[in-house]
Amino acid sequence: MQTVLKSKEQEVRIETEGTVTIIGEKINPTGRKKLADALKKKDFEFIRKLALRQVQAGAQVLDVNVGAPGVEEKVMLPEVVKTVNSCTDVPLCLDSNDSEALAAALEVTPGTPLINSVNGEKSKLDSILPLVKEFDTAVIALTMDDEGIPKDPEARLAIAGRIIDRAVKMGIRTENVVIDPLVLTVGADQNAARVTLETIRLVRKEFGVNINLGASNVSFGLPERQTINQAFLALSFGAGASCVITDPEKLSSTILACDLLLGRDSYGKRFLTHIRTVQNA
Amino acid sequence: MQTVLKSKEQEVRIETEGTVTIIGEKINPTGRKKLADALKKKDFEFIRKLALRQVQAGAQVLDVNVGAPGVEEKVMLPEVVKTVNSCTDVPLCLDSNDSEALAAALEVTPGTPLINSVNGEKSKLDSILPLVKEFDTAVIALTMDDEGIPKDPEARLAIAGRIIDRAVKMGIRTENVVIDPLVLTVGADQNAARVTLETIRLVRKEFGVNINLGASNVSFGLPERQTINQAFLALSFGAGASCVITDPEKLSSTILACDLLLGRDSYGKRFLTHIRTVQNA
Repeated sequence: MQTVLKSKEQEVRIETEGTVTIIGEKINPTGRKKLADALKKKDFEFIRKLALRQVQAGAQVLDVNVGAPGVEEKVMLPEVVKTVNSCTDVPLCLDSNDSEALAAALEVTPGTPLINSVNGEKSKLDSILPLVKEFDTAVIALTMDDEGIPKDPEARLAIAGRIIDRAVKMGIRTENVVIDPLVLTVGADQNAARVTLETIRLVRKEFGVNINLGASNVSFGLPERQTINQAFLALSFGAGASCVITDPEKLSSTILACDLLLGRDSYGKRFLTHIRTVQNA
Repeated sequence: MQTVLKSKEQEVRIETEGTVTIIGEKINPTGRKKLADALKKKDFEFIRKLALRQVQAGAQVLDVNVGAPGVEEKVMLPEVVKTVNSCTDVPLCLDSNDSEALAAALEVTPGTPLINSVNGEKSKLDSILPLVKEFDTAVIALTMDDEGIPKDPEARLAIAGRIIDRAVKMGIRTENVVIDPLVLTVGADQNAARVTLETIRLVRKEFGVNINLGASNVSFGLPERQTINQAFLALSFGAGASCVITDPEKLSSTILACDLLLGRDSYGKRFLTHIRTVQNA
């Protein structure tokens, strides 16, 4: 199954049977004080640099989130979309809890972006899916609802099913719903990653859709986070994830190594080109 | 299923449902000139250090191989077994192409070692399985035969089946045959790792036995070998491998991270203890 994202002139296909799609996570002020300050000061040059560095490191799509205290998202999200589009032409992943901010950003985003995110909460379904339909975009759907994040894979699968169902009834194509099975830190719950991996397998088997992961939470609070994140990504791709929101400067090499090992990179050409590019950067 | 290895006083269980067993690969002169020289000069202190460093880094079993030009294996393998046993008490993995050297080493090895290895070649089956039976050990069985290494997983599965069959008919217990699906470099064949991963899945499903991997070949000739090896280990454990012959100084952290992510490490205690030990070493 393919989820087609577009920028002004580029197309990126998230594919269940293809190479993994890398979404750069760094334009997000959560835990990044310098970016939060830059957003408050409207230092757009800082944001341009963040965008370019990530594309250079292998990001094929860029997540754009401006949620920080003192920042009016409805105004700033479209501004940052324009900023990123002024220096690079990759499809965007519009990331906000505020549906008005998303609507404002959608008005100025060329092509077909990914919306980040809807989930099974009634208010989210009611506010986000109409935007997906109206702007004919794709959307990331988190497997949580008004009851919270279920502890077992079957319940997460059921939420994924309800969101897909609702989307399809509204006329959104199944392939435009990218399921995110959510991952919590294994530092707090030894089953956290196992449940996510099992959810990936179940969702792939049941619905055949693309699956996205936010891949840094899993190691929160633990030492050697890079090692844990690398291992988790490989386990996730082995289970069937096809798209990841991550730090491409830290994890692109691991992601491309997984594509190579999973037989998706003839003679390692893509991996070798990437390593050469990164080493010369 | 459990494969129980023993040293003089310790027991190590390779378990299909448990944490991964780490076999230290470094007492093997192939590609290690210093060790080859040490063996020729009978510099046993060098070997003791290699043994201790690996156990310190997380090895639970040590592979012992003395195959180098100018070294008489039948004499040296028992000598090195005694050397390793003089400084540490982990079970051993006796690694030789020479069945007489293995027989001589088995005479001086306490407990239940692992023999590395038999395969589907007639001469190997005839020379190695009788030793496994006589000394009541476990054995690594490579999925190749007189025709070479098959390119497809089903053919490797068939060889695994034939070896297990032959072993069982001789009175060797199934759980004492640890299948090694073999891995070639993805630099030469883009399907090399995929075929290995699929073989792991098939062998686990069909026979339920433990599966060992030599985990360094896969990246031969490529840059960023550590990244590729880390990713491959995670993919392999996700597919069902339970035992690995590797460099514990480079890869123990990744292996323990995988156990943590696969829900086999309550509150990450084992991972955290390992990281602390390695950082203080």
